[in-house]
Amino acid sequence: MSATTSAQPAAERPASERSSSERKEPTYLFTEKHVAEKSEIARKFLDSRERLNANVDKANNFLVKRFYNVDHNTYLEGSLPAKTKELMGLVASTCLRCDDCIFYHAIQAYRLGVSRGEQEESLNVALIVGGSIVVPHLRRAYELLEEMYS
Amino acid sequence: MSATTSAQPAAERPASERSSSERKEPTYLFTEKHVAEKSEIARKFLDSRERLNANVDKANNFLVKRFYNVDHNTYLEGSLPAKTKELMGLVASTCLRCDDCIFYHAIQAYRLGVSRGEQEESLNVALIVGGSIVVPHLRRAYELLEEMYS
Amino acid sequence: MSATTSAQPAAERPASERSSSERKEPTYLFTEKHVAEKSEIARKFLDSRERLNANVDKANNFLVKRFYNVDHNTYLEGSLPAKTKELMGLVASTCLRCDDCIFYHAIQAYRLGVSRGEQEESLNVALIVGGSIVVPHLRRAYELLEEMYS
Amino acid sequence: MSATTSAQPAAERPASERSSSERKEPTYLFTEKHVAEKSEIARKFLDSRERLNANVDKANNFLVKRFYNVDHNTYLEGSLPAKTKELMGLVASTCLRCDDCIFYHAIQAYRLGVSRGEQEESLNVALIVGGSIVVPHLRRAYELLEEMYS
Amino acid sequence: MSATTSAQPAAERPASERSSSERKEPTYLFTEKHVAEKSEIARKFLDSRERLNANVDKANNFLVKRFYNVDHNTYLEGSLPAKTKELMGLVASTCLRCDDCIFYHAIQAYRLGVSRGEQEESLNVALIVGGSIVVPHLRRAYELLEEMYS
Amino acid sequence: MSATTSAQPAAERPASERSSSERKEPTYLFTEKHVAEKSEIARKFLDSRERLNANVDKANNFLVKRFYNVDHNTYLEGSLPAKTKELMGLVASTCLRCDDCIFYHAIQAYRLGVSRGEQEESLNVALIVGGSIVVPHLRRAYELLEEMYS
Repeated sequence: MSATTSAQPAAERPASERSSSERKEPTYLFTEKHVAEKSEIARKFLDSRERLNANVDKANNFLVKRFYNVDHNTYLEGSLPAKTKELMGLVASTCLRCDDCIFYHAIQAYRLGVSRGEQEESLNVALIVGGSIVVPHLRRAYELLEEMYS
Repeated sequence: MSATTSAQPAAERPASERSSSERKEPTYLFTEKHVAEKSEIARKFLDSRERLNANVDKANNFLVKRFYNVDHNTYLEGSLPAKTKELMGLVASTCLRCDDCIFYHAIQAYRLGVSRGEQEESLNVALIVGGSIVVPHLRRAYELLEEMYS
Repeated sequence: MSATTSAQPAAERPASERSSSERKEPTYLFTEKHVAEKSEIARKFLDSRERLNANVDKANNFLVKRFYNVDHNTYLEGSLPAKTKELMGLVASTCLRCDDCIFYHAIQAYRLGVSRGEQEESLNVALIVGGSIVVPHLRRAYELLEEMYS
Repeated sequence: MSATTSAQPAAERPASERSSSERKEPTYLFTEKHVAEKSEIARKFLDSRERLNANVDKANNFLVKRFYNVDHNTYLEGSLPAKTKELMGLVASTCLRCDDCIFYHAIQAYRLGVSRGEQEESLNVALIVGGSIVVPHLRRAYELLEEMYS
Repeated sequence: MSATTSAQPAAERPASERSSSERKEPTYLFTEKHVAEKSEIARKFLDSRERLNANVDKANNFLVKRFYNVDHNTYLEGSLPAKTKELMGLVASTCLRCDDCIFYHAIQAYRLGVSRGEQEESLNVALIVGGSIVVPHLRRAYELLEEMYS
Repeated sequence: MSATTSAQPAAERPASERSSSERKEPTYLFTEKHVAEKSEIARKFLDSRERLNANVDKANNFLVKRFYNVDHNTYLEGSLPAKTKELMGLVASTCLRCDDCIFYHAIQAYRLGVSRGEQEESLNVALIVGGSIVVPHLRRAYELLEEMYS
């Protein structure tokens, strides 16, 4: 992100005033550790993800690293808030039926301060678009929501 | 929707203050007719959709009508703004690679005042989650965006 | 379901003589409990499903309840027998590769008196349409069939 | 199909009395030509399919021929009637969202004497399992049904 | 790409002797223009792709450009020859059922000197893995092969 | 495979000189037992697969056996080497996100002498085509690669 002469830094201006090429790291209200302490499902998922990612990192595959980098950049604050994009990641993951991806985005959204109601409405979009084949994943997502939001 | 003593009607309060069971029709800035006049792609899609839906309506299938009803309710103003949910519908449709569905949600989002930058960021989430198999649909989506936003 | 002057109630007439708007609960030959006693796989699935659904029910999400309702109505006796529609649910679940959904519909079909041969022929349709990516799910389905039908 | 000493030939006994290894060609009530005359959509699909298949046949690829052969055998009369299996093919095709496959199985089912109500109920299973992403395909399926059954 | 003392440049050594971080542009035997002259299907696809990509390029979306860049790098000569990776792209595209992607990779493979037999065997892998839902795409792929290889 | 007057048997000629109808069993450098001893993940997968397949074999379903036979024939040495086709199976399985299928083809490729770099490049094709939804499967694939190749 290049320097800017704006008195107000990009990060502090509302998303709607930032151009699509301005991106910044979002501010998390909670750490992964905090979520892992609240939810057993989150803890198991985060531990397993960390262990397996260490193995991928060790392989040091150039294209995997490039892909991970573009992936990371996709969810930064931009024209849309990071919150919204994590919920979009949740919708996409639920439609495409990947439990690990659902857990990841629901945890990220939680860490950014998304409410349970907002998570449920996102899952509703995924349910109607994706159909009843999505239901077993919805059940597991609700179990995680229950643990995180109680 | 339970009665409320609030002086300010549900519709006018911000989404974050509405409970998930309160839903209302969103306010469109533009009619379908307006979009059809700006974009040839939109016009063709809307005409074909109207013609084919007339045929489905004529069949009067009870369960199809029930499904359409739940579908309609999913995108109303609720805990999340209708705008966000139409963009989530766009992400889901792009990941699942359905041109008709992409056109539908991109048009709906446009009618609700979503900016081109917001549409592009939504498509970026779908692209990274769904991969290069999404690219041909992305190209056709950009063609529609170009026509609607110019 | 509108009143009918027919001497014979809708439920007792053959499916082919009922209109598509007439729907009725099917008659199960076996309870879920019976199946759970015959098959360990069925028991684990039914227990987990019950536990997770209790959690979803507790959330009391309006649209989830509406969706579940339409889903329930889809598999009632209608123009097609409930048996056939459960087997169609099995085919769809196998093609879309969801083990939980496969177990659910295979159990439902069993409870309605479907034979093992009929279950296998349904899985064959899913196998040829869906390809070898379906095979791991087919193997798990056969394990359930083995337990239920022995 | 091994010889049988049964007085009544396999073909004439009800499906439920045939073993799963007994298969026979179904009896079509209508020719493809007849359907092509009733429905413009069917005619275009059947013509295009015939032209493209001629090209595949010319290539004479051993494994494609073997695959086509297993595919053909899957839909013969067996433990389940051919009618039911064509409708299962329709459900699978609709869930997996392939218009050509939908048209193929809806036409086959029509040729075997399936009623419009039975076709609609099959599509309802696909709609609830597959979700709203299926809707554009449902619309095109209803257009074909309208032409074939009017 | 780290410095190497090898007298023979990376590009000229066989793939098996290159490390996975060494990548180079493949050598095409034929231009897109050549393929477009041989095949009407290829010509229409390439023209449409060029026109739509121009539109995407104009939007100049940072993340789309990054994604396209990683995508381009994936198919360069590396541990595996470019030829093999284009055929893998063909298999993936056929399994995931995207005609545009199938045409793209089949044309790329042709341009790199892949034989018709090799293209057909790749399609066979996609057919068995993906099932009969792949058949309509197989038919269209064979039409392109027929035009390119005759 | 028809008789041939060639002094050199089909099996020993390079793939590029064999016609697509000539197929032969590939030569494995390692047995399944060897891989199971190196890798705990492989061992668990192979044991479970063997146990479940025994159950499918016992059912003796004619069409399943036919399908398995065509499947087996697809990966024999032909116009393309068996190695390449196992890697194509790996790409397809990764795109379609089936862990069992990924494990199967990665093990087969290993047994045929494929290098780790070649496996990783195949996974890269699947990652870019299939998107980030593929990542959890990629992580599990890397864990298997780590065990097999160390």
